[in-house]
Amino acid sequence: MPHHVKSGDNPDLTKERKAATFNAEDLSAFLYGSKEKVERRREISRIVASDPDFSNTPPLEFIDREKRIDVQAKKTRRLLGKIHELIDFTNDDERELLFTEVFVSDGFPIFLHFAMFLPVLQGQAHEEMADEWLSKAMNIEIIGTYAQTEMGHGTNLKELETIATYDKQNEEFVLHTPTRSATKWWPGNLGKMANYAIVTAQLHIDGKSYGPHNFFVQLRSENDHRPMAGITVGDIGPKMGANGIDNGFLALDRVRIPRTRMLMKYVKVAPDGTYTPPLHSKVNYGGMVHVRAHMVTSMATYLSMAATIATRYSAIRRQGRIEPNLPEVQVIDYQTQQYRLFPQIARAYACLLSGSEVEDLYKKTVQGLNRGEADLLPDLHALTSALKSVCSFSCATAVEQCRMACGGHGYSMASGIPNLYTFAIAGCTYEGENMVMLQQAARYLMKSLDKTARGEPLSYSVEFLGKKMETRSNVGLHKNNQKEEIEALLCSFEHIATRLTVVASQKLQNRMKMGESKERAWNGATVEMNKAARVYARLFIARSFARRVASSPASVRPVLTDLLSLYLHYECVDMTHHLLHDGYCNGEQIEYLKQRIYDDLAKIRPNAVALVDAFDHSDRLLNSVLGRRDGNVYEALFQWAKASELNYTDVLPAFDHIKQMMEENRAKI
Amino acid sequence: MPHHVKSGDNPDLTKERKAATFNAEDLSAFLYGSKEKVERRREISRIVASDPDFSNTPPLEFIDREKRIDVQAKKTRRLLGKIHELIDFTNDDERELLFTEVFVSDGFPIFLHFAMFLPVLQGQAHEEMADEWLSKAMNIEIIGTYAQTEMGHGTNLKELETIATYDKQNEEFVLHTPTRSATKWWPGNLGKMANYAIVTAQLHIDGKSYGPHNFFVQLRSENDHRPMAGITVGDIGPKMGANGIDNGFLALDRVRIPRTRMLMKYVKVAPDGTYTPPLHSKVNYGGMVHVRAHMVTSMATYLSMAATIATRYSAIRRQGRIEPNLPEVQVIDYQTQQYRLFPQIARAYACLLSGSEVEDLYKKTVQGLNRGEADLLPDLHALTSALKSVCSFSCATAVEQCRMACGGHGYSMASGIPNLYTFAIAGCTYEGENMVMLQQAARYLMKSLDKTARGEPLSYSVEFLGKKMETRSNVGLHKNNQKEEIEALLCSFEHIATRLTVVASQKLQNRMKMGESKERAWNGATVEMNKAARVYARLFIARSFARRVASSPASVRPVLTDLLSLYLHYECVDMTHHLLHDGYCNGEQIEYLKQRIYDDLAKIRPNAVALVDAFDHSDRLLNSVLGRRDGNVYEALFQWAKASELNYTDVLPAFDHIKQMMEENRAKI
Repeated sequence: MPHHVKSGDNPDLTKERKAATFNAEDLSAFLYGSKEKVERRREISRIVASDPDFSNTPPLEFIDREKRIDVQAKKTRRLLGKIHELIDFTNDDERELLFTEVFVSDGFPIFLHFAMFLPVLQGQAHEEMADEWLSKAMNIEIIGTYAQTEMGHGTNLKELETIATYDKQNEEFVLHTPTRSATKWWPGNLGKMANYAIVTAQLHIDGKSYGPHNFFVQLRSENDHRPMAGITVGDIGPKMGANGIDNGFLALDRVRIPRTRMLMKYVKVAPDGTYTPPLHSKVNYGGMVHVRAHMVTSMATYLSMAATIATRYSAIRRQGRIEPNLPEVQVIDYQTQQYRLFPQIARAYACLLSGSEVEDLYKKTVQGLNRGEADLLPDLHALTSALKSVCSFSCATAVEQCRMACGGHGYSMASGIPNLYTFAIAGCTYEGENMVMLQQAARYLMKSLDKTARGEPLSYSVEFLGKKMETRSNVGLHKNNQKEEIEALLCSFEHIATRLTVVASQKLQNRMKMGESKERAWNGATVEMNKAARVYARLFIARSFARRVASSPASVRPVLTDLLSLYLHYECVDMTHHLLHDGYCNGEQIEYLKQRIYDDLAKIRPNAVALVDAFDHSDRLLNSVLGRRDGNVYEALFQWAKASELNYTDVLPAFDHIKQMMEENRAKI
Repeated sequence: MPHHVKSGDNPDLTKERKAATFNAEDLSAFLYGSKEKVERRREISRIVASDPDFSNTPPLEFIDREKRIDVQAKKTRRLLGKIHELIDFTNDDERELLFTEVFVSDGFPIFLHFAMFLPVLQGQAHEEMADEWLSKAMNIEIIGTYAQTEMGHGTNLKELETIATYDKQNEEFVLHTPTRSATKWWPGNLGKMANYAIVTAQLHIDGKSYGPHNFFVQLRSENDHRPMAGITVGDIGPKMGANGIDNGFLALDRVRIPRTRMLMKYVKVAPDGTYTPPLHSKVNYGGMVHVRAHMVTSMATYLSMAATIATRYSAIRRQGRIEPNLPEVQVIDYQTQQYRLFPQIARAYACLLSGSEVEDLYKKTVQGLNRGEADLLPDLHALTSALKSVCSFSCATAVEQCRMACGGHGYSMASGIPNLYTFAIAGCTYEGENMVMLQQAARYLMKSLDKTARGEPLSYSVEFLGKKMETRSNVGLHKNNQKEEIEALLCSFEHIATRLTVVASQKLQNRMKMGESKERAWNGATVEMNKAARVYARLFIARSFARRVASSPASVRPVLTDLLSLYLHYECVDMTHHLLHDGYCNGEQIEYLKQRIYDDLAKIRPNAVALVDAFDHSDRLLNSVLGRRDGNVYEALFQWAKASELNYTDVLPAFDHIKQMMEENRAKI
C-alpha cells in the first residue's frame, strides 16, 4: 500500500496512488538524499503539527498584519524556549525546515536575523566586535537585520546616499540620512522587530569618500524597544505578499557610534582615520553567490508545493464529460489540463535537482577558496546570476499556471497558491533585479566567447561555447534510443545558447563599429544579451537535470526519465524559433518534438499524483484546502470559509449603512 | 504647455511631457470619443475627489476586510443619496465611471446588483415579476445578486446540483442544496450584503428534470438582515484580490417560494406543472457575449493604468549610469526597460481600441437580433470567447511586467499595481475559464473551415480562412511604405491563424481515423485547438487596432502608427516559429522584424509619458504613489508608509513576546 494512502481518503486519490508505476517513497529518498532524511523531515513535521504552541488557528490569512506579527512573535518565543530539544540548532537544514514548518511561508521576527544579520556579522566582524556581539546574536539576546537598500537605490549600491563620516576627535562615526530618498527601505524585520542592524553607508574620512561599508547600529532600546535617539524607524506598509513580515524604513539623524562598530575584518579605519582597504576587492562575493544558489532551490520548492496542490485537486475535481454517456471526468484527464500541469511538475524536479547541483558547486568553490583557489568563483557567480533570474520567473509563472489550473477555487486563499505566487514572483526582484542579473551573466558569456577566439580554456559552465557544433540537429533521429535522444536535445540547447551568445556579441560589435562607446553599445545590445544569458541558464538546468536522472536509483529512473523527456521536449518546443532560424531543425523535426510532448504527457498521467506525493510536503506546510493529502476538499473548504473573519456574526455592522440607504431609497418614491 | 504639466512637478516628468511630438489631449479625445467626453470624465473625477463623503483616508489597503466593507457601504449610502445630482443615473458609462472613481477598483455592496442581478431580472423576468420587483431593484430598495456557480460546478452548468422541485399542491418551488458541493460559491455580494438573489437550480417537475432555471429568492430579512429560514449564507473568506467584496456561499434547506418567483419571460411552469420551453434554445446567449465583450475593455483598462504607473515612475527613477562619466540615468533609457514597458503601452492601446470595436459589433448584433436576424451571433460569440481569453491573460501578464519594471517598490501596495494584477488575472477564470472559452472559439473555427471546404460564405471574423494565401510572406519587402508594411504583417497573422486552424483540424481528423470517437479525438486535439483560437483572437486585435489607427485624426495618427508598428512587430516576433515553420518567412526576414522592434522603441521613447498621460487616469483612480501625475514619488512614499497600520505606535504589543524571549535567552547563559 503506498505510503500516502490512508483509510477515509478521497477514493479518486487512492486510485491514483495505487495505479502509480513506481514507489513514491524511493523518489522522496532520492530527492532528499536518503530514506533517513525523509523520515527526519516527517518527524519534525509531526512534532510541529502536534504542538499547540505552534497552532495556526485561526489561519494566518484570516487575521490582519498586526495580529499576524503578534502570533508569529509568540510562536518565536515558544519555539526558542525548546528549540534545542527539537533539533540540532547548528544544522542549517534542520533549522530551516523547522522554521518553515512553524511559520508556514510567512514572516517571523528572526527571519532576517538568520538569513542576513548573522552571516554578515560572522563574515565581516573583526575579532573585537565578534567577541562582544557574536554570541549574543547567536543566542538571540538581540535581534538584528541588514539595512542596505534605500528608497532611491537598490541595484546600484555604489550610489547609496547614507553617509558615515568619521570624527577623528571623538573616534566615532556619524551616520546620517541626508535626503528622503536616502531612507533605508525594504529590509525585513527592520520596521518593528529588530533592535540592531548592520547598516550600509558611504564611508567619509577627511572629506574623502571610500564607498559603501557596513556599520553596526543599535536601533531600539533593549528594554522598552523604543527607537534610540536620532533613529526614525517603522514599517513600510502592506505589500503584494509576505505581509507577516515587517519590512521597514530607517532614517538616521547624525547618529554617533564608536569607531569599533564598523565591521572591520577586511577593511580598517585606524583611530587617526587611516584607511586600510581590503586585500581582495570582492570580499563579499561568496555570500551573494550562496544566496542566489539557494534561491534556485527555494523557487523550485514553491513550485513543487503549487504543483502538489493543483495535481491532487485535479485528480479529485470532476467536471464535464469527455464522452457524453460516461460520468463526469477527473479534470486531470483533459489534455489542456495535463499540458498546463505536467510540465510544471517536470520543471519543479528540474529546478530542485539543478538547485542541489549548484549548491554542490558552491561547496566545491568554497573549498577551493579555502585553499586559496578563486578560479571557480567567476563561473559560479555568472551561473547563479542567470539561474536566479530564470528560475524565479519561470517557477513563479508556473505557480500561477498551477493556480489557474484549480479554476475559481485557485483564486481563494484556501488554495494556498496565491501565497506561493507572491513569494515566488518577489524572487524576480530581490537579491538582484533579474534584468541586471542577466546582464552580469551576459558579460561573462562575452568574456568567455573572447577566450574561445583566443583559444584559451573555458570554465565549467561555458564549456559548450568551445564545442565543435554539428551544423544540423540530430533531433528525432534516435527514436529508439532514449539516451541518444536526450543527448540530441541537450545539444540543441547548446546550439541555441552558443548562437545567441554570438548574436549578442555581434550586435555589440556592430554598434561599436558604428561609433558608439562601448557602454552605449552595450545598452543597445542588452535585450539580445539577456536572451543569451537566459538560454545559458536553461542549458545548465537541462544538463544538470539529465545528470541527476542518469545517476538516480534504478527504481525511480524510468519515471524521472519520462519527466526529463517531457521537460526537454517542452523547453525545445518553447525555443523552436531558434532551432528553425538557421535551419538547425526543420518543420518536420519540430512536429516530431511536439508529438513527443503528447506521448510524455500520456506516460506521466498514471504517475502524476505519486510524483507530487514524492515532494513529501506536509499538509501543514502546503496550507491548502485544495491540496490536502486526503483529497477531502469540499467539506474542508466549507469549514475553512465558515471561519472567515466576516462570518463571526451573521450581520455585519456595515448593514446599518445599507439599511439606511434602502430606507432612504424607499422614501424617495 | 501640455495639459498634464503643473508647476511643482518632478522636472523629469515635465521634460518628458514637453518633449512629446504630439498633443496628449487629442489622443485622449480620440480614445474616449470626443473632447467633451474627456472633460466629463475629468468633471466626475474632480467631484468625487473633492467630496469628503468619498474620502479614501486611510487607504483601503491599510484596513481589514470588515472595515473595508464598512467604508464602502458608507460611501454607497452617501453616493446614492446624491447620485441624481451628480450624473444621469441611466447612462451606463457615466454610472460605471462614477462607481469606479468612488470605489477605486474595490468591491462595493451593489456591484453585483448592477452587474448581474438587474440585467438578468430585466432580461428574464415575466411581466408580473417585473411589475413587482423591477422598480424596487432599479431604485435599490433591495440589494440583489446572481447565484449560479456552485462549489462543485462552475464551468459545467448542466451539472449544477441545486434543485428546484415543483410542488403542484401548494403551487410552490422547493429549493434545496442536496450536497456540500451543491453549495452556491463565489457570487459577489452574496456573503454579507445582498438580501435577494436570482438562484440557478435544476427544475424538477413530477420527477422529471428540465435543466437549470432561474429563481428569485429572498435571502435575508429587509428589516434586520438576518438570513431567512432555511438559508445558510456567508462569506467565502479571503482571496488573492478583490477582498473588499463579500463573495459568498449559500445553502438552501427546502426553501419554499411561490411558483411566480421563477423567472418566466421565456419559459413557463403552469400551476398544474405544465412546462413550456423557450422558443430559442440560447435565450441568454447575448448577455454572456456582452459581458465578455466588455471584458476586453476592462482588461485593457487595468493594463493602461499599470502602464501609466510604470512609465511615469520609469521617467523619474534614476539609477545606474549608461556612460560612466555622466549622471545616473532615468531607468526608462535602458533598452531592457523599454523592451519591457513600451510593448505593454502598445498592447493597452491595441486592446482598448479592439474592445471598443467589439462593443460596436455587439451593438450591431443586438440591432440585428431586434430585427429577428440572429446570424451575427455565433460569430460574435466565438470572437468574444477567444478575445476574453487572450486579453485577460495577455493584459494580466503585461500588468505584472509593468509591476516588475518598478523594481522593489512595484511590490509595495503603494505602487497600486498588485491590486491591478489580482483583478486582471482573475479575468482568466471568471465568466468562463479560458481553456474552455478557447475551445468554444475553436469549435467555431472548425465549423468555419468545413464551410470553406464546401464553398459556403464565411462570417465576418473568420473571412481570412477563405482567403487565397500567398505561400511566401512579403514581410520586410516594403521598407519604405508603412501601409504596405503593416498589411504584410497582418497577412502573416492571417497565415498563422489559418495554418493553426488547419493543423488542429488535421489532428482531430487523424485521431478519428485511428478509431477514436469524435469526443475523445477532440480531447486529444484541444491543445492544438486552443493554439488556433488564440491566434484567431490575436489576428482580430491586430486588424481592429490597424483599422482604428487608419481612421484616427491626423494629429495623432503618426504616434499611433508607431505604436501599431511596435505591436505588430512584437507580436510577429513572438510567433516567429509559426512563420519559420513552413518557410513562410526566412531567418533574414525575422532578423529584420526584430530590428524593427528596436527602431520602434526608439521612436516611442520621447512620447512614452505623453502616451500614458493620454489614458487620462486620475490620481485617485490610479491609487498609486509611484504613478502620481506630479512625479513627486519619494516624499509621498514616505508619507504613505508612515500611515501604515503598524506605525500607529512605535512599539507593537508583539514586543512583549520578543522581550521575554530575549530575556529567557540571556538567562540561559
